[in-house]
Amino acid sequence: MRAIVAHAAMDLRVDEFDDVRPGPGEVLIRLAVGGICGTDLHYYKHGGFGPIKLREPMILGHEVSGRVAELGEGVKGLAVGELVAILPSRPCGDCRYCLEGLPNHCLNMRFYGSAMPFPHIQGAFREQLVVEARQCIPAGGLSAGEAAMAEPLSVALHATRRAGDLLGKRVLITGSGPIGALCILAARRAGAREIVVTDLADNALKYSGKVGADLTINVADNPSALEGYAADKGYFDVLYECTGSPVALTSGMAALRPRGVIMQLGLGGDMEIPMMMLTAKELDLRGSFRFHEEFAVAVDLMCKGLIDVKPLITHSMPLDDALTAFRTAEDRSQAMKIQIEFS
Amino acid sequence: MRAIVAHAAMDLRVDEFDDVRPGPGEVLIRLAVGGICGTDLHYYKHGGFGPIKLREPMILGHEVSGRVAELGEGVKGLAVGELVAILPSRPCGDCRYCLEGLPNHCLNMRFYGSAMPFPHIQGAFREQLVVEARQCIPAGGLSAGEAAMAEPLSVALHATRRAGDLLGKRVLITGSGPIGALCILAARRAGAREIVVTDLADNALKYSGKVGADLTINVADNPSALEGYAADKGYFDVLYECTGSPVALTSGMAALRPRGVIMQLGLGGDMEIPMMMLTAKELDLRGSFRFHEEFAVAVDLMCKGLIDVKPLITHSMPLDDALTAFRTAEDRSQAMKIQIEFS
Amino acid sequence: MRAIVAHAAMDLRVDEFDDVRPGPGEVLIRLAVGGICGTDLHYYKHGGFGPIKLREPMILGHEVSGRVAELGEGVKGLAVGELVAILPSRPCGDCRYCLEGLPNHCLNMRFYGSAMPFPHIQGAFREQLVVEARQCIPAGGLSAGEAAMAEPLSVALHATRRAGDLLGKRVLITGSGPIGALCILAARRAGAREIVVTDLADNALKYSGKVGADLTINVADNPSALEGYAADKGYFDVLYECTGSPVALTSGMAALRPRGVIMQLGLGGDMEIPMMMLTAKELDLRGSFRFHEEFAVAVDLMCKGLIDVKPLITHSMPLDDALTAFRTAEDRSQAMKIQIEFS
Amino acid sequence: MRAIVAHAAMDLRVDEFDDVRPGPGEVLIRLAVGGICGTDLHYYKHGGFGPIKLREPMILGHEVSGRVAELGEGVKGLAVGELVAILPSRPCGDCRYCLEGLPNHCLNMRFYGSAMPFPHIQGAFREQLVVEARQCIPAGGLSAGEAAMAEPLSVALHATRRAGDLLGKRVLITGSGPIGALCILAARRAGAREIVVTDLADNALKYSGKVGADLTINVADNPSALEGYAADKGYFDVLYECTGSPVALTSGMAALRPRGVIMQLGLGGDMEIPMMMLTAKELDLRGSFRFHEEFAVAVDLMCKGLIDVKPLITHSMPLDDALTAFRTAEDRSQAMKIQIEFS
Repeated sequence: MRAIVAHAAMDLRVDEFDDVRPGPGEVLIRLAVGGICGTDLHYYKHGGFGPIKLREPMILGHEVSGRVAELGEGVKGLAVGELVAILPSRPCGDCRYCLEGLPNHCLNMRFYGSAMPFPHIQGAFREQLVVEARQCIPAGGLSAGEAAMAEPLSVALHATRRAGDLLGKRVLITGSGPIGALCILAARRAGAREIVVTDLADNALKYSGKVGADLTINVADNPSALEGYAADKGYFDVLYECTGSPVALTSGMAALRPRGVIMQLGLGGDMEIPMMMLTAKELDLRGSFRFHEEFAVAVDLMCKGLIDVKPLITHSMPLDDALTAFRTAEDRSQAMKIQIEFS
Repeated sequence: MRAIVAHAAMDLRVDEFDDVRPGPGEVLIRLAVGGICGTDLHYYKHGGFGPIKLREPMILGHEVSGRVAELGEGVKGLAVGELVAILPSRPCGDCRYCLEGLPNHCLNMRFYGSAMPFPHIQGAFREQLVVEARQCIPAGGLSAGEAAMAEPLSVALHATRRAGDLLGKRVLITGSGPIGALCILAARRAGAREIVVTDLADNALKYSGKVGADLTINVADNPSALEGYAADKGYFDVLYECTGSPVALTSGMAALRPRGVIMQLGLGGDMEIPMMMLTAKELDLRGSFRFHEEFAVAVDLMCKGLIDVKPLITHSMPLDDALTAFRTAEDRSQAMKIQIEFS
Repeated sequence: MRAIVAHAAMDLRVDEFDDVRPGPGEVLIRLAVGGICGTDLHYYKHGGFGPIKLREPMILGHEVSGRVAELGEGVKGLAVGELVAILPSRPCGDCRYCLEGLPNHCLNMRFYGSAMPFPHIQGAFREQLVVEARQCIPAGGLSAGEAAMAEPLSVALHATRRAGDLLGKRVLITGSGPIGALCILAARRAGAREIVVTDLADNALKYSGKVGADLTINVADNPSALEGYAADKGYFDVLYECTGSPVALTSGMAALRPRGVIMQLGLGGDMEIPMMMLTAKELDLRGSFRFHEEFAVAVDLMCKGLIDVKPLITHSMPLDDALTAFRTAEDRSQAMKIQIEFS
Repeated sequence: MRAIVAHAAMDLRVDEFDDVRPGPGEVLIRLAVGGICGTDLHYYKHGGFGPIKLREPMILGHEVSGRVAELGEGVKGLAVGELVAILPSRPCGDCRYCLEGLPNHCLNMRFYGSAMPFPHIQGAFREQLVVEARQCIPAGGLSAGEAAMAEPLSVALHATRRAGDLLGKRVLITGSGPIGALCILAARRAGAREIVVTDLADNALKYSGKVGADLTINVADNPSALEGYAADKGYFDVLYECTGSPVALTSGMAALRPRGVIMQLGLGGDMEIPMMMLTAKELDLRGSFRFHEEFAVAVDLMCKGLIDVKPLITHSMPLDDALTAFRTAEDRSQAMKIQIEFS
């Protein structure tokens, strides 16, 4: 079988591996679709990000769906041929954070395609994948592409839960990439009354409009438009910061009301923040990291038609064109979510 | 002008009153539509409920919309002829609870059509109504009937906010009257993943289905169906108790998971509750009472098409047929929300 | 070795058992002190409570301390002879509630001295007890009696955490038994500004005064004193209901402010509650059940002198007088916490 | 009468003003004691801080106590000669934030000694002060110096409330100035199990020890001691950042557990923060600004002996030595809280 491997910065290859078989309690998945995440792009382009660096070749990918190919001994409730979304979060279930109900902070997490520990946790962009049965979330009624969106949608749902009650709230999102756009869907599903999105790129903002933003603002064209809007229409209750840019964070904070909440999703480096504004307005800047139980919720909400991610899947390319897919994903002037077809 | 007056139990009349004019900061409303609430029915049938009793004739009604007929001195931002939903909550803005952000607990509340203080607070079922400008929420794009639904929808939104984060949660609603049905809409808007509704009447349950319940259960036909469903599919996170019936409350509590939340909306008398179950499962039984800032949210969510209450308005009758309207509202075999047309 | 066994209602015996030895990861405890809990009394007097009934002889007891007598293979960090408080909560660590951080709702809980499952979970009132190493919380500096108070103190701490922020709050406690009195200590430690306690017995109230209640009210002598106090001095933010009596609950609810919180700790049967009051004041009635991580906190707070439970230990009797100890515990005119000395 | 006036940076004078008299509902206070706050020091040394600059002479001071000298018409419940703590927070009671229960975010706030609006809000370091009756909190049993500590203690209590439940939590405080030290008292009162304080100055840390810190660490002497302590003893639940220094914030964040909470109290300029750490650990950085209802709580807790601020009042100087007092307050090698005696 083949898999997509980052050997080093700018050295991405489709390599051959031996076939695999499921053990007891496990399931063999024939991968259907894998979506390229910003993290995958960082490994591809820079060999990592911040303090996290590739030290050995690593299969990329964690946004995947597939079809059940074979059931290991003792597995029930799944049928061969069934489409499933694959939960990439594999906490140990034994450490103190797992037992506190915080599996995303598991001390022994094995999240697909992550170079944080060494040896690295190999990823899921492979034609065959053996998973535990509980990682398989049936996705009947969805396309394989939609099922592969369960992962980034879970990131948005997790951040939305951490933002607290959104019913009737006014929401600002800085950054209209895939995560920002999925936060529109999550915030709307959670009852947001108004959703405004800013970005520097018209193409990105176009997709925010397609998934329901009430207003999109290109702050490259018009840096002061956000400030004017907030002063005129009212300050926002919640900011999802999805850029990692200090300028976006600061202008977003200025558009928040006292006691406003900032969900920080954009992964940048160190960021300079206007601390007096944070203090005087009693803002609340919260990190959000991955997800866990939101994954099954994400699949369910899509299956029931309560969230529709289809407008965000802009490109789908065969495994043979993996490198082209990664290059396309880099280009914000045309890409939103790029997916690779494994079968 | 005419108004609908409860003189005593089973003594409802359409009486004549002098015309009224707006003072400074006030607005004259030509009433369009008034919806009959369960409270109105209690005054009509029993002259009150619990310790609250009519001691003088009282104009009923608090779910109303109308058109701006005249602007008092200094009023800006409203146009004659404009359809508005009327906020019936009139807190003093000075007492300790108003200053704590709890206007629904205002010590000097003047909520339309309420016999709690004496002299009573006269209601809004009248052809002409003078209100403060801030009570007028523009409802452009809605029908007058929808605008009059802002009030009971606000009750459901307030309870939903007090229930905490619903995103991805499983919700049970006992009682499929207008409030129960509006709680479906509110809970879904807030992100509920699954909504199950129970009632004793098929007609009532039919409307819950129309506004999006995933499953309706007639517990008259099948008293143990709820228990079986919960044991099979999973216990619920949140219960909206909208009947005031101890049987419904107890069976609903049995279907909740540990740490489940019960929003008590049904107004019954004293209720016997299974305290050991509440303690051992660490359930959380919360009262919910009226609303305040949710009113403008309710109008906005309807205007944006994010909540659609139209399927719940089953009857609309002219003021001349007010008595028939009240009698129809009593009959759960046919009624959901009954509205009266004032113009 | 000997143990205190409830064979049936009013049939309590000190029986002989074989000695025990620790396995790998386990610790042999020579029991020092065991406190009699209200639950133990129910088994002794009535053979159970509510739906929970003795179906076979059961060793009682779950409030215990002891000294390390022998370390099983692989146990580190404990020394023979050391005084430890014994955590009686033994969740499975694998079920969904354990993995949600709710071990007190473990589906496979083995809490000492509990007749809920069958075969029953045998209790800890025995001269020798084998425990897992993690159940041993070093209690250096405390008396064995204080260490045995860690269990009921944990109940009070757990309820206090569930009550939310108490800093500067005004607290009412109905019921001045051991749990009520420990709630005084917990609420004060959590920052309560004022603590008022009601009971029907002067002896019980005397101990509330000793552990810091600002005011005690004998509501047998003066049924309306609480109402008068609240009207005069201000309504309470939080009620700890520790009686299980509907009268106490209702009068306590009447003394709460809007949005007040009721922690229900008293285990009665079904209770009739004034639902219109709960709804109109938007009260929040929360069950509280056992504890888990609060146990180590309880020991630590006592060790650091931040909570002093000594005034509540009124009687200490040797194992030979176990029956007398149980009879004394029934008599509220003299008892607060009765403990049995096992060594 | 005399008052302490900042005319510009490094131009502090004791000026003469006309005597004042109370109007209806007002109270004339003969000032007793005024404490020097960090804000006062900024005006004295730099003529302001951040974007806030003196544009006209301004009387300084907002931490004051005094004795009732004369009652205006209609004032009840206060006696001439009585010691009172003076609430310096004067929200309008009418704006949207006042009506949301957020008076510290009042749009028309008149907080004593604040150069934010122009004309500036004159301060309370004056021999005579006319206040509204509701600003007077009786402080019987306290010294005038303690009563003047109600203000900074309120800052610590407000931050503590915003930090959420502290019962049994482990707390880190970076910065052992007056606010840091008062946060020790507030956190302990709220139930913190362990409190560790860091600073660069031994003198400052000495006072943290006096008010109950479990451990003080001089991070000038030993920059890595905090990291080692956390790795060994366990990461902290809550950080009070009281320095405004990015180094302190970053090292404090590193010592927090996942989902830890940071209360930002230190007023620095813009601060660079390690955003990836905040995101990956899902930390929660919350601003805290002033207080309101905590003021009466602060006085009450001191009156009841539940908080003792006396060890923190290190210097008390007569009004004639005002300039010396300010100079002393600058010198962290000897000062903690410096107060000025007005009578």
